[in-house]
Amino acid sequence: MASIRDVARIAGVSPSTVSRVMNGTANVEEDKRQKVLAAIQETGFKPNELARALFKQSSKIIGVIVPNIENPFFNELAKAVEEEAYINGYKILLCNSNNNTEKELMNIQMLNQMKADGIIILTYSDKTGQAIASCQLPVVVVDRQLTGSGQSAYVESDHYKGGKLAILHLLDCGCKNIVFLRGPLEVSSGQQRYQGYHEICNKYGIREQCIDCLYDYEDGLRAARELVEKYHHVDGVIASNDMIAIATYKILTREGYRIPDDVQMIGFDNIRFSWLFTPELTTVNQPIKKMGTLAVQIILNYAKGLPFQQENILDVSLVERQTTRRKE
Amino acid sequence: MASIRDVARIAGVSPSTVSRVMNGTANVEEDKRQKVLAAIQETGFKPNELARALFKQSSKIIGVIVPNIENPFFNELAKAVEEEAYINGYKILLCNSNNNTEKELMNIQMLNQMKADGIIILTYSDKTGQAIASCQLPVVVVDRQLTGSGQSAYVESDHYKGGKLAILHLLDCGCKNIVFLRGPLEVSSGQQRYQGYHEICNKYGIREQCIDCLYDYEDGLRAARELVEKYHHVDGVIASNDMIAIATYKILTREGYRIPDDVQMIGFDNIRFSWLFTPELTTVNQPIKKMGTLAVQIILNYAKGLPFQQENILDVSLVERQTTRRKE
Repeated sequence: MASIRDVARIAGVSPSTVSRVMNGTANVEEDKRQKVLAAIQETGFKPNELARALFKQSSKIIGVIVPNIENPFFNELAKAVEEEAYINGYKILLCNSNNNTEKELMNIQMLNQMKADGIIILTYSDKTGQAIASCQLPVVVVDRQLTGSGQSAYVESDHYKGGKLAILHLLDCGCKNIVFLRGPLEVSSGQQRYQGYHEICNKYGIREQCIDCLYDYEDGLRAARELVEKYHHVDGVIASNDMIAIATYKILTREGYRIPDDVQMIGFDNIRFSWLFTPELTTVNQPIKKMGTLAVQIILNYAKGLPFQQENILDVSLVERQTTRRKE
Repeated sequence: MASIRDVARIAGVSPSTVSRVMNGTANVEEDKRQKVLAAIQETGFKPNELARALFKQSSKIIGVIVPNIENPFFNELAKAVEEEAYINGYKILLCNSNNNTEKELMNIQMLNQMKADGIIILTYSDKTGQAIASCQLPVVVVDRQLTGSGQSAYVESDHYKGGKLAILHLLDCGCKNIVFLRGPLEVSSGQQRYQGYHEICNKYGIREQCIDCLYDYEDGLRAARELVEKYHHVDGVIASNDMIAIATYKILTREGYRIPDDVQMIGFDNIRFSWLFTPELTTVNQPIKKMGTLAVQIILNYAKGLPFQQENILDVSLVERQTTRRKE
């Protein structure tokens, strides 16, 4: 098998020049570069995987930056990304950002240096959004709309429709006193779901009742305690996501409410735990697997120079289970 | 500052031997290797980061091969690995194997080619075990004991103690008719937990009642249905893990059993969902975070030529929550 020294000898240059050509970074005169490339062809030189990655400027690696791999929505998405990447011969490099902007920026820089083929990111940081806009790699933002970036795409669910579906379903179930544990308004999922809810309230003259709530279980416990204190007569809850619904279930049952007899409840996302849980949760389905698959396909298309759709808003649907019951 | 030549001189070997040792790939006799490692320690030899990367062909990547990132036990472990790797300047490359031996083997080969710094793997395949034994990288097997490999380590919980804790606790709670949804005996966690249970049954003259059960939720539903059919008078269930406990809860409550009034229940693992669930599960805690951290530290120690413990069995403990109740 040919070595880097063989290539250098045939090209009439030093091994370090071969290395610089493969590296693609330092200045090498064009004629020397051509000689090196010819010698590589001639010898059939096959550098190891890492060197080849530098050479081809493709590492067959897709970076995935999620806030927290422990969160079911993110790990279901990561799994879908990994599976789609794998069948296309790509690996994923997983980064857990804990919503830490600095860690996100470091990871983006690192993936740039590694010549990753693209980045799939879930972020809520505007600063990270700016870094994405100036990133040399294709970046697909999932679960958030990105503004001001030419080369990136986003994949998101139709949260606006989701918000409408949720309240309309509780109305169909006969709820008269609905409270919305509303997700963060600075995030498009939170903002859009609220818009959908808001429109239906307007249309039917329903008084809005919201408690602001983050997307994590612990904040769900807090919001649910506030719910019980402020709204004794609640008979319908829209939870900001399924994890919040699970937290709310705990607090409501502890306080003696029966679900769905006293209070009906709907979540968002349709994570796996929404049906492993007892009672099984009624929820608004996000096509999580499809989101992950599509994000990978966009990066593959980018790599192949094929066109891809920049804005991708996927459909959501109502999944009726045991925490709601339609009127007879 | 010490150079590679200083290290070679002190160790009484050639610089290329030092290089091979640091490289960790080629064959170096064990006594020479030890001399080189000692000389590195003695001189405080620190190659600079770039030189070391080229030199060692280190990619600062740790490969993590898990059966299914969606499974809470695995994703909590992956998170711990990622966090420990990150603070040490390493990235993780995550591979989802779906317990597919071929995929595991391909991933190991790929990580070898990439010059990953080590592999952390959860596998149940003997064939993969053989590949690990001949792998050039340090491999840490988590949640399973590995036999016949010189350079690898394993990190596991004390499942034998766990099995004893589980049945002893149900006896303390007054259970007279305990059924064990027993995990797979070909896996050390299943085997050891059963041994612990078996010993206590022997000691107290208790008749063993087992239903074999895999570790996934779907098989938990099947096993729980078999439980209800075969053992009407069950008053205590040891579930093979927390996911199986969650599945069993669904089937038992559907059949009208109240938990813990009619049937008490204990799981294994203490995954996050064991306390998010309502009722909160009594379980045997595995130190998941510690397992992930330790696995990374072993690989870092290996890379630095520092000693590490090959066999690591971590302690487990009883976590009493709402699915069991001690006798007054």
